[in-house]
Amino acid sequence: NSNLKLFSLNSNPFLAQEIAKVIGVELGKCSVSRFSDGEIQINIEESIRGCDVYVIQSTSAPVNEHLMELLIMIDALKRASAKTINIVMPYYGYARQDRKARSREPITAKLVANLLETAGASRVITLDLHAPQIQGFFDIPIDHLMGVPILADYFRDKQLDDIVIVSPDHGGVTRARKMADRLKAPIAIIDKRRPKPNVAEVMNIIGNVQGKTTILIDDIIDTAGTITLAANALAEHGAKEVYACCTHPVLSGPAIERIQNSKIKELVVTNTIAIPEEKKTNKIVELSVAPLIGEAIIRVHEEQSISALFD
Amino acid sequence: NSNLKLFSLNSNPFLAQEIAKVIGVELGKCSVSRFSDGEIQINIEESIRGCDVYVIQSTSAPVNEHLMELLIMIDALKRASAKTINIVMPYYGYARQDRKARSREPITAKLVANLLETAGASRVITLDLHAPQIQGFFDIPIDHLMGVPILADYFRDKQLDDIVIVSPDHGGVTRARKMADRLKAPIAIIDKRRPKPNVAEVMNIIGNVQGKTTILIDDIIDTAGTITLAANALAEHGAKEVYACCTHPVLSGPAIERIQNSKIKELVVTNTIAIPEEKKTNKIVELSVAPLIGEAIIRVHEEQSISALFD
Ligand SMILES: Nc1ncnc2c1ncn2[C@@H]1O[C@H](COP(=O)(O)O)[C@@H](O)[C@H]1O
Ligand SMILES: Nc1ncnc2c1ncn2[C@@H]1O[C@H](COP(=O)(O)O)[C@@H](O)[C@H]1O
Repeated sequence: NSNLKLFSLNSNPFLAQEIAKVIGVELGKCSVSRFSDGEIQINIEESIRGCDVYVIQSTSAPVNEHLMELLIMIDALKRASAKTINIVMPYYGYARQDRKARSREPITAKLVANLLETAGASRVITLDLHAPQIQGFFDIPIDHLMGVPILADYFRDKQLDDIVIVSPDHGGVTRARKMADRLKAPIAIIDKRRPKPNVAEVMNIIGNVQGKTTILIDDIIDTAGTITLAANALAEHGAKEVYACCTHPVLSGPAIERIQNSKIKELVVTNTIAIPEEKKTNKIVELSVAPLIGEAIIRVHEEQSISALFD
Repeated sequence: NSNLKLFSLNSNPFLAQEIAKVIGVELGKCSVSRFSDGEIQINIEESIRGCDVYVIQSTSAPVNEHLMELLIMIDALKRASAKTINIVMPYYGYARQDRKARSREPITAKLVANLLETAGASRVITLDLHAPQIQGFFDIPIDHLMGVPILADYFRDKQLDDIVIVSPDHGGVTRARKMADRLKAPIAIIDKRRPKPNVAEVMNIIGNVQGKTTILIDDIIDTAGTITLAANALAEHGAKEVYACCTHPVLSGPAIERIQNSKIKELVVTNTIAIPEEKKTNKIVELSVAPLIGEAIIRVHEEQSISALFD
């Protein structure tokens, strides 16, 4: 492991510490601060010449600050002669801008991929992209890890009876199916429909939730509108309990208030995005992706070490 | 001018309005806002297909927000089939990180150039780069305009007697010489020297300032440490009055307080960076670069229109 170096930027310092522990290395020394005018100043404080470098940074809020920290770090590593620059982005920001939904829109998820490659990234490791197609936005290798097993294990350990996994919309059915397979449970789908324009949506539920322990699953919970409406619909349709889970707790704007005031009993999330102290509540349970990411780094590094034999 | 389109992002909306007036066009319709989680949302609200588009944005503070707005706008314009995408950056942020001053530093000014090209910029129009070498960081055409004539004209109109143009450090002597040529004045140089390590700097002055009206000139005034120390040294050496001027009023941190408490009588700046209302004081005079930039856009556009004949 001597030429593996792990660096953390400012988005997830605690997760980075945990990953370092899993791998059995110390975090590399670097400082990422601001000049008086707000420009980012990066100092890498140890040699990384010829090393396989892994940089841990989610592009969570403040997304533009975190993204620029990452790009500038990649530039510095490249100029300091890193052998490979591997970007560990537990949360890939701008993933929802992955297509032109209307004319003259940007495709920012693709722009971000291009920026990372231009800066000098060799490889990307990420979790639960909003659309798996984003993998194709890169011309460098990308490892796409899944949060579902971590979430499923948590609920399995809780030994809940008579559960149903629920997708809050049509787009998330595949994810719900994966979770259900792991928990040997049936699925249900919230089937939103607007009967006429300018009339309130009707929340149908496809599948049986009467008297069941329901677990809503999504990839991202942002303002928590969808998930809390879904939770309340489940309760109205006779669900015994409503749990919710997701990989990426964006939790912006009214999210926390909505969750607190909803029928959700517990919201289970991972730490791909660090939740600020002031947003933590007794309803939120955080699971760590450090073992998953640590394993991925070890595996990628072994592969890179092997390929180095043939260089 | 029918296929020339001018858009403003969020850094300099007033300057953009002025430039539009100089050129005789309306600003293009677009909205640049934020999603709930802070991600940038851009909507271009009119067709720009086949047009020569000019986007006005300084990468002033908040630099990372302004830079990302610009990159995402370029992406949107490219996908909306703009013929050319011309970036008007009155102030080029990160220009001071233009070389590795120490080991393992980034060269962020070059990174920014690469990011702009990757996003899809066809051309850059900018003013007074901190180092003219930054022009060479681009593989696309770059037009480099000068603020000195605007500043010099202001002081000429004031009809001050017996003036000396002063460079606050050795790096700025060429700029002071240009200003002096326009005003037919002599120059002086603040010659900072540290006699021994850990001993305070001595401010020598090369040139005669006794009884003179002195005008300090720099490209950027950021925290205003250099310029206010220089001003006070001039006063101590018998200068009658001390004016200061620069192209880019970054004015971060203690800048305003330092200027107010210094011997500077008047600070003359341009509007490449918009000064927030709360930082404006009676000592600061703002000159507009709109005529200069407007002229440059007209000239570039004529050239592009001519070259279109041969396409
Ligand atoms: N940060 C964001 N917050 C909220 N909505 C977004 C964000 N980024 C993109 N979108 C919108 O979300 C939609 C894509 O989400 P989806 O349909 O779930 O793939 C698009 O219409 C985007 O305009
Ligand atoms: N935004 C900034 N604020 C203050 N200093 C900076 C900034 N960006 C770069 N620098 C430093 O300024 C020096 C370059 O300025 P100069 O010597 O005037 O070209 C380098 O040592 C940089 O580390």
